[in-house]
Amino acid sequence: MNEPIPLQVDDTELALLTDLYQLTMTQAYWKEDMHAPATFSLFFRRLPPTRRFMLACGQQHAAALLSRLRFGDEAIKRLAGTELFEDGFLDWLADWRFEGDIHALPEGTPVFANEPLLEVDAPISQAQLLESLVMNLVQVETVLASKAVRLVMAARGRPVVDFGMRRMHGVDAAVRGVRAYRTAGLAGTSNVLGGLRHDLALNGTMAHSYILAHDDEDDAFRAFARHYPGTTLLVDTHDTLDGVRKVIDLMHKAPELGVKAIRLDSGDLGELAKGARALLDEAGLEEITIVASSGLDEVQIDALLEDGAPIDAFGVGTQMGVSADAPVIDLSYKLVEYAGEPRVKHSPGKINLPCRKQLYRRLDDQGQYAGDVIALRDESIEDGEALLRPLVQAGQLNDDEMARASEARERVADALARFPDDVRHLEEGESDYPVELGPGLERLQSSF
Amino acid sequence: MNEPIPLQVDDTELALLTDLYQLTMTQAYWKEDMHAPATFSLFFRRLPPTRRFMLACGQQHAAALLSRLRFGDEAIKRLAGTELFEDGFLDWLADWRFEGDIHALPEGTPVFANEPLLEVDAPISQAQLLESLVMNLVQVETVLASKAVRLVMAARGRPVVDFGMRRMHGVDAAVRGVRAYRTAGLAGTSNVLGGLRHDLALNGTMAHSYILAHDDEDDAFRAFARHYPGTTLLVDTHDTLDGVRKVIDLMHKAPELGVKAIRLDSGDLGELAKGARALLDEAGLEEITIVASSGLDEVQIDALLEDGAPIDAFGVGTQMGVSADAPVIDLSYKLVEYAGEPRVKHSPGKINLPCRKQLYRRLDDQGQYAGDVIALRDESIEDGEALLRPLVQAGQLNDDEMARASEARERVADALARFPDDVRHLEEGESDYPVELGPGLERLQSSF
Repeated sequence: MNEPIPLQVDDTELALLTDLYQLTMTQAYWKEDMHAPATFSLFFRRLPPTRRFMLACGQQHAAALLSRLRFGDEAIKRLAGTELFEDGFLDWLADWRFEGDIHALPEGTPVFANEPLLEVDAPISQAQLLESLVMNLVQVETVLASKAVRLVMAARGRPVVDFGMRRMHGVDAAVRGVRAYRTAGLAGTSNVLGGLRHDLALNGTMAHSYILAHDDEDDAFRAFARHYPGTTLLVDTHDTLDGVRKVIDLMHKAPELGVKAIRLDSGDLGELAKGARALLDEAGLEEITIVASSGLDEVQIDALLEDGAPIDAFGVGTQMGVSADAPVIDLSYKLVEYAGEPRVKHSPGKINLPCRKQLYRRLDDQGQYAGDVIALRDESIEDGEALLRPLVQAGQLNDDEMARASEARERVADALARFPDDVRHLEEGESDYPVELGPGLERLQSSF
Repeated sequence: MNEPIPLQVDDTELALLTDLYQLTMTQAYWKEDMHAPATFSLFFRRLPPTRRFMLACGQQHAAALLSRLRFGDEAIKRLAGTELFEDGFLDWLADWRFEGDIHALPEGTPVFANEPLLEVDAPISQAQLLESLVMNLVQVETVLASKAVRLVMAARGRPVVDFGMRRMHGVDAAVRGVRAYRTAGLAGTSNVLGGLRHDLALNGTMAHSYILAHDDEDDAFRAFARHYPGTTLLVDTHDTLDGVRKVIDLMHKAPELGVKAIRLDSGDLGELAKGARALLDEAGLEEITIVASSGLDEVQIDALLEDGAPIDAFGVGTQMGVSADAPVIDLSYKLVEYAGEPRVKHSPGKINLPCRKQLYRRLDDQGQYAGDVIALRDESIEDGEALLRPLVQAGQLNDDEMARASEARERVADALARFPDDVRHLEEGESDYPVELGPGLERLQSSF
């Protein structure tokens, strides 16, 4: 292609980021005059084997975009070019806007299989059209937040910093990922735009290329520490412990540079951290901390700390940036109610819960979570907090609920402490945390 | 966050999509007056276990963006706000532009471990700044194209259509993914914006929600087929073979609707396809084809066809959309030459090839590929085609080379036919395809 390649998707094009059948089905609804109210529910059927919960994330971002979704002139023209759509339908589409309701879990809510993350109530000709986009928007943040929180748990209070921008799936994932990381509890990110936009501290050290561009490692260390007093020096370009000795030498000659940390980025991180710590301590440089990076995931971090590795902070990238062990969840957006009637697909071996719903999380006397109840939206469950909140009402964003997204990070930390231990375990396997159906939903479900 | 959430990244912000250390190192180069020419090489050290080659993709898109990368006023203001940068450096950055050269493999070139996908020659203060962005841009398209081509190979000439937009990692991956899919040889996509922008045929059928919103399946089939004569009907909402019988009934009553295909989306696809085929053939509807979808990957497609499943086309989504078995490659952008001298990091057990390079692919007498040679850019290898081409020269896009991106799809098909069989095998394992070093590089490499 020789034409300029557009960088991004702007507001006028976003409505076209959908699957073709959403548009052809909507045209069919339009032709059949089917505009009765529908409810679609967003949920996943199964946790990935290496997840004991997911962290719902991205719903606020999705709601903000969906509430202003429009088919602009250019979009209508491009649809006309496909010759699949009638003029009358395209006119209707030019006036289309979302006028329904969206209920969603607050961002940062831990969620289990079959629980609704989000429900859309609207004429079917509106609700159907949101499907592909809402799934794309919620999927990526939920997948990334759910991976990142495992790294935070594995690090046991030590800071975890995102170094993964370069290996994430494109520009949007890289920028919006930082939103998910902030919610999950990461301490910082190397991603400048992501961090600035989503208010997460910027962190950075130095790369091997900087060392290699200098005549020797000493020169590179000295120059960089002079430019950035209190910096972190990367010590593994040639020989890690030799690099540590050079840092010690530099600090003895020029203590005013106040090198704050060293970074290990290759080799046996546990052994090298022990060796480096011993050298630094012998030299009276107990205040210099050790940062480790190099393809780390939560299993490796857990093993390093279990083994007593004296590592003070972790930089993580590749594995977290694509959630390598579980890069996708089995997210579904299913019609559950139409024209006031429950609707459900009969799938052998699959649970499909009909009707609009509410999710309750019950507390015990000690303030710990005792279990979840998936209920009909109209049945009230005692002792449980109703988690799905109205984000969009009659097409308008609910500002109070949107503002709650800023509490997402605190919500995660608070919620995790309230779950039984086995929900937080990192190893494969399911927790015993109970998720039940409310009596009304149970009765309805068994009647199908 | 209550503020409006920006949808995407525009041109004025793109330069901020980088890792912080690229900017702090560049400020250090600026302070040290280090502007000597450098070469950085983009390559991966290892193929994922389930890949026998990768399909290089995204280089043209990256080159187009990098050649126009600027730090706009707003970007400079935001960097100033971090208090990490001096005014003099920010002034220099406001005038910064890429004035170097980029050599790259044409998109759609199969590539193996340690082979350069792309090399940047520029003052180090320019080349360093491209690292994070070029990796992000090339990574996602290369990962997705490399997965998609396996599905194409598994389908043995049958059309493979992308249904995966909803489960890809964000907006950019979803749109740009279609570019990679076109290169890899997919027949179509359900992704409207992706298909329109990147010139891949749009495909779509119908969803279970459409069936469920009607009073019964017959009504839904009849209505949809009337709206879209020659359409594909989804037959598995209730009972697959029962759904097929309803299609047969419809076609007997209203043959003018010309239903073209049925889609199976759940259950034992092989058995159901055989059952459906038998019913259709008995009814004299041999012309109705069978489309299968439902979490398919290349291993399942291969097994279905090996077992004789009468499936005519495949819709694939989740597994392909995140390249679930290999969502990331170990891509590196390494300094290999600075100020005319080779530079190399010494990493035990890792190969680091110094100096600017060229990649040659040798043909045998039958026009088959005989092996690759990674050589110094200045040494000439006989009988081999030099694959790295000048995409950007002195900061300007080379239009002739950019135009070659439009041949990427044909390039893939042609190249795959020229490799030994074992390069195309789908099972885990390495091929025997030889990748060697040129004599000059071999000599230089052994001297380190």
